[in-house]
Amino acid sequence: MGRKVQGNLVIIGGAEDKREDKVILREVVRLAGGRNAKVAVVAVAAEDQEHLGSEYENIFRELGVAGVGVVHVNSRRDASLQANVAEIAGATGVFFTGGDQLRITSLMGGTELDRELHRAYERGVVIAGTSAGASAMTDTMIVEGDQEDAPRNLAIRMAPGMGLLEEVVVDQHFAQRGRIGRLMLAVAQNPYILGVGIDEDTAVVVDAQARFKVIGSGTVTVIDGTSLEHSSVSERELNQPVAIIGATVHVLAPGYGFDLASRLPLPPHGAVTAAR
Amino acid sequence: MGRKVQGNLVIIGGAEDKREDKVILREVVRLAGGRNAKVAVVAVAAEDQEHLGSEYENIFRELGVAGVGVVHVNSRRDASLQANVAEIAGATGVFFTGGDQLRITSLMGGTELDRELHRAYERGVVIAGTSAGASAMTDTMIVEGDQEDAPRNLAIRMAPGMGLLEEVVVDQHFAQRGRIGRLMLAVAQNPYILGVGIDEDTAVVVDAQARFKVIGSGTVTVIDGTSLEHSSVSERELNQPVAIIGATVHVLAPGYGFDLASRLPLPPHGAVTAAR
Repeated sequence: MGRKVQGNLVIIGGAEDKREDKVILREVVRLAGGRNAKVAVVAVAAEDQEHLGSEYENIFRELGVAGVGVVHVNSRRDASLQANVAEIAGATGVFFTGGDQLRITSLMGGTELDRELHRAYERGVVIAGTSAGASAMTDTMIVEGDQEDAPRNLAIRMAPGMGLLEEVVVDQHFAQRGRIGRLMLAVAQNPYILGVGIDEDTAVVVDAQARFKVIGSGTVTVIDGTSLEHSSVSERELNQPVAIIGATVHVLAPGYGFDLASRLPLPPHGAVTAAR
Repeated sequence: MGRKVQGNLVIIGGAEDKREDKVILREVVRLAGGRNAKVAVVAVAAEDQEHLGSEYENIFRELGVAGVGVVHVNSRRDASLQANVAEIAGATGVFFTGGDQLRITSLMGGTELDRELHRAYERGVVIAGTSAGASAMTDTMIVEGDQEDAPRNLAIRMAPGMGLLEEVVVDQHFAQRGRIGRLMLAVAQNPYILGVGIDEDTAVVVDAQARFKVIGSGTVTVIDGTSLEHSSVSERELNQPVAIIGATVHVLAPGYGFDLASRLPLPPHGAVTAAR
């Protein structure tokens, strides 16, 4: 996993606390420079971008940043508007709201805004995303899939994501929407992929050394297919339940970390673990 | 795992098909002797035992058995009634309905009916149970626990079960009610325990050689804690999310089996698996 980039990613499972301690949003601000932060809120995923954009703009102002701007994208033309590109170019932090991840990729993918986003990431800007905004960060993203049901063949839809994080597929609202079945299916389809399922009000913060830590109030479920012995996913029967043998699963609580390169969980200091 | 017993267990995840192909209920009848089967329906778990008892009685009659009786237990005194004990003593198959697993154990545990049930199992009678009736079969059973949330410390309640199956904890309505969090927690509390989560309209059939096979329309999730490296479950903080590192998870589709003694999944004939 060659990572040349300097930026952090804050990948949020949706429904992050916006009223009380705001642990996750404070961390986004801290990584973006605290009082000197200039945050660009990108509301492209949402239908009601005015409302959601304003909500986050107010929250970031309350948290005490130097500046906040909202980028509305309702068409691919919007994604090429110089004003929008400039907002990203001048930002120290970019925040993708929730909504529909396909809106993010289909409206922004391959535009000047998309290129400016990647340049921002490469110069060390923190890119944060919640819900759909989280799922869209990876090379390949889940678009749709059965929830609260056994993983069924071909029941999951995936599409190319924004490519800020390799080798990982993210799912959000994870425990709350019973999504482990579809994440197991995503990993079984290509066990090279690490599945990362993030609960509501929980986030992973990924650093430039390809390690992440868990913050917030829930857990992050990691599905590692390296140990996978077998799955029936290549059998060409539509809608049959899929068998998956030998996946390794970790549930990471706040304070725990994970090394993406070695795929090793990182318990907090002082935690007792089995000798390796 | 020393298993001297001769009986089969049919452990059903709830909501088994009662109208169409009735795959699971047919298998119960087959194991109980088909046309010669004498089935005792034990409705102790349910509040409305008349209704549920009659429903199953009708279904078993339609499936073509030699005889069906219903055992109603609303008090520990009922659990000692000679008529009820005789129903079990004469049965070739016993079927526990759904409801509340604590009703099963608190009303029957330690009574003559309980002893007769164990004698039946030892002489080769098939014992089937659905939903609460499934959970109650093991040494230790889940009574209650958070659903659709991150596993939280002390959030799960367990109690002694009927003791027909050792080393295993069963959860039912598994995918449908988002119960993997609490099953992970149960296994983390004692990784000696194998977690078996059964979806709706799905069952495991356990034989006298301590192997099971999956039948029905969903999947069975097995959580094997042998590989568990660490969990934070012994830290004395109420309601904090629990970290679990290194669990092995299998999702078994219909046709797949599992060897409880060796903890090895058994793919159907012809399935390609990684060399061991």
